[in-house]
Amino acid sequence: MLAFVGLGIRGEESLTLEGLKELQRADEVYAELYTSPLPQLNLSNLEKMIGKKVRVLNRREVEEGVELLKASKERRVALLVPGDPMIATTHIALRLKAEALGVRTKVVHSSSIISAAAGLTGLQNYKFGRSATLPLGQTSAHPYEVLGENLERGLHTLLFLDVKADEGRYMTANEGIDYLLQLEKQLKKGYFPSNRLALVVARAGGDDCLVKGGRAGELAGMSFGPPPHVLVVPGRLHFMEAEALQTLTGVHPDALAEQEFLQVRGLRETLLKEIEKWTERLEREVGPLKSKPKMENILAYLRDSEHFREKGDLVKSFECLIWAWALFQLVGVKSAEDKR
Amino acid sequence: MLAFVGLGIRGEESLTLEGLKELQRADEVYAELYTSPLPQLNLSNLEKMIGKKVRVLNRREVEEGVELLKASKERRVALLVPGDPMIATTHIALRLKAEALGVRTKVVHSSSIISAAAGLTGLQNYKFGRSATLPLGQTSAHPYEVLGENLERGLHTLLFLDVKADEGRYMTANEGIDYLLQLEKQLKKGYFPSNRLALVVARAGGDDCLVKGGRAGELAGMSFGPPPHVLVVPGRLHFMEAEALQTLTGVHPDALAEQEFLQVRGLRETLLKEIEKWTERLEREVGPLKSKPKMENILAYLRDSEHFREKGDLVKSFECLIWAWALFQLVGVKSAEDKR
Repeated sequence: MLAFVGLGIRGEESLTLEGLKELQRADEVYAELYTSPLPQLNLSNLEKMIGKKVRVLNRREVEEGVELLKASKERRVALLVPGDPMIATTHIALRLKAEALGVRTKVVHSSSIISAAAGLTGLQNYKFGRSATLPLGQTSAHPYEVLGENLERGLHTLLFLDVKADEGRYMTANEGIDYLLQLEKQLKKGYFPSNRLALVVARAGGDDCLVKGGRAGELAGMSFGPPPHVLVVPGRLHFMEAEALQTLTGVHPDALAEQEFLQVRGLRETLLKEIEKWTERLEREVGPLKSKPKMENILAYLRDSEHFREKGDLVKSFECLIWAWALFQLVGVKSAEDKR
Repeated sequence: MLAFVGLGIRGEESLTLEGLKELQRADEVYAELYTSPLPQLNLSNLEKMIGKKVRVLNRREVEEGVELLKASKERRVALLVPGDPMIATTHIALRLKAEALGVRTKVVHSSSIISAAAGLTGLQNYKFGRSATLPLGQTSAHPYEVLGENLERGLHTLLFLDVKADEGRYMTANEGIDYLLQLEKQLKKGYFPSNRLALVVARAGGDDCLVKGGRAGELAGMSFGPPPHVLVVPGRLHFMEAEALQTLTGVHPDALAEQEFLQVRGLRETLLKEIEKWTERLEREVGPLKSKPKMENILAYLRDSEHFREKGDLVKSFECLIWAWALFQLVGVKSAEDKR
C-alpha cells in the first residue's frame, strides 16, 4: 500500500491527526521535500513523533519511483509530501504507476497554499481564475497571458513562484514582480503596469506569515523574508474584499482607487461596446430616413444584428451592423438625401 | 484573540496538530458546522481530545457574532469551521469585524475540498478555471455560464453543490447534474449535453470517499451515497489526466473520445476563424483585380486588418475586413468587372 500523506503548508505541525496515525502504522516512511520549501519542518522532531526514520528522496528517486514502488508492493508505505498531495504532477504520475502495478493507494489531505492564499488575503475563493507558475531561469509569456485572461473577466490570479528546492533555488516575490514588469514592458498589454495592485503572501501558515499588498512597483523594492512566497493579483473587488485588503494586507486606499483606471477590457466587453456604439449611431442617422427608398436592406441588417445579439452571437451581430453602416454610406442613401 | 481553526474535510481526524494545540489552549471553543456537512465528525470525541466543551453556533449567531466577539475581546477563543477557514464569506466578514474591534485574529489552515477535488480526480490543479455553486431552491444560469467560460478556454470547473446544513438540506450530485441538464435544455449553448463528461466526488477525504466519472446522463441515474458531494466538469485533457480519469474514476474510453466532439468554441477562436475566412475570400477575389481602379481602398482595408490582427485587436481587424468586402461588393469594382 502506498499512502500519500500531506505535510500541509507548515511542517510536522500541519500534519493532520489522520496523517500522523498513517505514519505511525506505516512500515516505511519516505518524504519528498523538493516541490516546496517548508521552513518550519523539523524532521528529527517528526521522526520522534512517529517512532521511525524518514528517508528523504531526491527528485530522480521520486520521479522514477523504483524503490518506493518496490517497497509499496510488499509493505505499508507512506510518502510524505509538502502541502496537499496530488497538486504536483509527479505525485499523480507516481500514483498511476502504483495503481498499474496493483498497489493500493490512498491520499491523506492537508492544507494547501491554494486555499490558504485566498483565505489569508481575504479574497473570495470562487473569484480566482486559473493559476500559473513563474518559471526560474526562463522568460515565458504564459503567466502574463493567464493574468490578462483573468483580469479581462475581473478574476483574481494566484501566481506560484518556481521552486527548485533540490538546487536551493527559490523565486522571491520581488523577482516575480520584476518578471511581470519586464513582460509588461515587452508586451505592453496593460496587464501589469507598475501601479497594478499585487499581494505578496510569504510563509503562508507559518508563525511568521506575512501578507502585504500594494502597487507592484512599490512591493518590488520591499523585503519579505525567506521563502516560500506566492503572488496574488486581484481582479475586480467586492467592497468586502476591498475592506479585507486594507485591513489584512495594508493596501492604501489610493492604490485601490487607482485600479479602476487599470481595467483590462475583454473581447466580449469590447464587442458589446462596439455593437452598442454602432447601433446607436445607425439609429440616430437612419431614423429620420426610414421611409426613403433603399432603406429596407439597412433596416433588415439592423434587425438581424439585434436578433444575433439576443442569441448571444456577438460576431454575427457586429458583422450585420458594419454591413448596415457600409450600405448606408456607400449605396447613396446619404447622397440621395444630400441631393434632395 | 480569535483563532479560526480548520476542521479539514473529514472531521476531528483532519484537524492539524497545530489546530489541536490551539483548541487545547483556548479558553473557549465554538464551532460552526452549517457551511459544510462533515459526516465523520464525532463531536464528543473531539471534546474528549481537547478537554473542554464545544459550543455549536447556528447561522445567525455566527453572522452576527455578538457572543463570539465579546468572548474574543477578553479571552483566547477558537472557532472551529469545516474545511480550510476563510473560504466562506461569513468567516471573512467575522474576521474583519474582530480586527475592527481590535481583537487579534489567527488562521489555522487545514485541508479543503478546493485542492482535494483536483487531487482525487487526477486533474491538474492549474487547469481549473473559476468555480461556482449550484444553489438550492432557485434556478440560476450563472454556474452554467461559468462552466461555458471555462470550457471555451479548455479549463476544468469545480462546481459546489449548495448546503443548508442547518435545514438538513444538501444538493446531491444527481440533483446537480439534473440542474445543469435542464439549463442546457433551456439555453442550448452546448455546455452540458447529456454526454458531457462529468465527475462526482462524494465524501472527499472520508474513509468511504467515492470518485466516479462518466457521461452526465449516465451519472444522473447512479447512487453516490450520503453528502457532501461536489461535481467536476473537465475541460481539455492532457494525456496523463485522461489516464488518471480512467484509473481513478472509472471513465470509459468511449466517453473520453466523445468529448472531442463537444468542444465549446470561444469568442476569440470564433473571431479568428472569421478573420481567416474573410481574408482568404478577399485575397482570392481581389487578387486578380489588383490593378483595377477603385481598388486602393480595398487593399488598404486588407492591410489595416492584418496590422490590427498582429497587434491583437481582433475586433478592429474583423471590422476592416467587412468594410473591404462591402466596398468590393457595393462600389462597383465587381460590376465594373462584370461589364468589362
